[in-house]
Amino acid sequence: MTEVATKGERTRARLTAAAAALMQRQGYHATGLAQIVEESGAPRGSLYFHFPGGKEELAVAALRDAGATWRTRIEAAIDGATDLGAAVVAVCALFADELAASDWQLGCPLATVALEATTASEPVRLTCAEHFAGWEASIAARLTASGVAEDPARRMATFALATIEGALMLARVERSPRPLEIVGDGLRVLIGLTAHSAPNTSTGAVIGVR
Amino acid sequence: MTEVATKGERTRARLTAAAAALMQRQGYHATGLAQIVEESGAPRGSLYFHFPGGKEELAVAALRDAGATWRTRIEAAIDGATDLGAAVVAVCALFADELAASDWQLGCPLATVALEATTASEPVRLTCAEHFAGWEASIAARLTASGVAEDPARRMATFALATIEGALMLARVERSPRPLEIVGDGLRVLIGLTAHSAPNTSTGAVIGVR
Repeated sequence: MTEVATKGERTRARLTAAAAALMQRQGYHATGLAQIVEESGAPRGSLYFHFPGGKEELAVAALRDAGATWRTRIEAAIDGATDLGAAVVAVCALFADELAASDWQLGCPLATVALEATTASEPVRLTCAEHFAGWEASIAARLTASGVAEDPARRMATFALATIEGALMLARVERSPRPLEIVGDGLRVLIGLTAHSAPNTSTGAVIGVR
Repeated sequence: MTEVATKGERTRARLTAAAAALMQRQGYHATGLAQIVEESGAPRGSLYFHFPGGKEELAVAALRDAGATWRTRIEAAIDGATDLGAAVVAVCALFADELAASDWQLGCPLATVALEATTASEPVRLTCAEHFAGWEASIAARLTASGVAEDPARRMATFALATIEGALMLARVERSPRPLEIVGDGLRVLIGLTAHSAPNTSTGAVIGVR
């Protein structure tokens, strides 16, 4: 029984990995079930066994796995750096290297789907929203741990996430690490100012105060 | 002859407008020629008359029109504001209003296509890259006009564009203006620091210095 369950888990993982990879490259709308099954190498019948809800259920599971993997990697990069400023530079460099190595195809695993799925599938949209919120929470937690108050930390986390997501898009379109290098450097300085300034000085107010 | 040309121009404009609207909502891969013709109300035969290159040629023309329209609107918003900081807040508020009014569907006219077309069509990718570069140039030109040196101005423009693009994506996924409000406020302060500081102080170096 254990072996059967394990084989089933492997098949399920092959399906979600193939779905995630295809959606990352070409989006939700353009990714069909037949293509996912073919890329995964899983038996055709296994799809509706594991995902009776079809494409939408498989997409949600695939985005959940990809989002959790990215969160783990982001947290590892942050925890491995000497400070948050160095961490953001490291994360941007990591993403730039991956983009270049994949011929500028593999950016954020959620972004392509996030932009189009808002008009297509509410469960898919909610899964994306949940993961973006999770990544923000990871960044905000590190900021509060280094002494930033909660509201400015959350705003800085949103700002940093938006900046990195936008730079990932520009880098793909330019086929160049330039946008990621620029935002990594800029966010490093900005985080330093936010973390080391009193909240009511002009520099400390960069993100914290309306 | 003039009347015929004008009618032809109107048909062409209907086709590019329909293509741009569909690609903005659902991306390049998922948008088919039959759907574009149907949405546009143009005669079926007009498609290959105006765009003998088919979907790719129509997509490039549609993105070019949409990108030029956005550039004009961005420049009008900048020129209508008292300073660049106020302008970036105004642009973010304008985008947030449009998103909310369109039930969070109408964000950047290029972003959805930009993320997926990098793997599909080189002319489409180049068109996106060209327009992002154009928007950056518009922002950078205003920064240099207010006294910022060229290299920091270009870096700040890339940073601001990335941040706004990322916030547009997060806002769509959250169905909330929150990310755009946060980045508008943050960029306003950041632009103020960049524009009013000597390049070798810590605040002036936010974007200017590696």
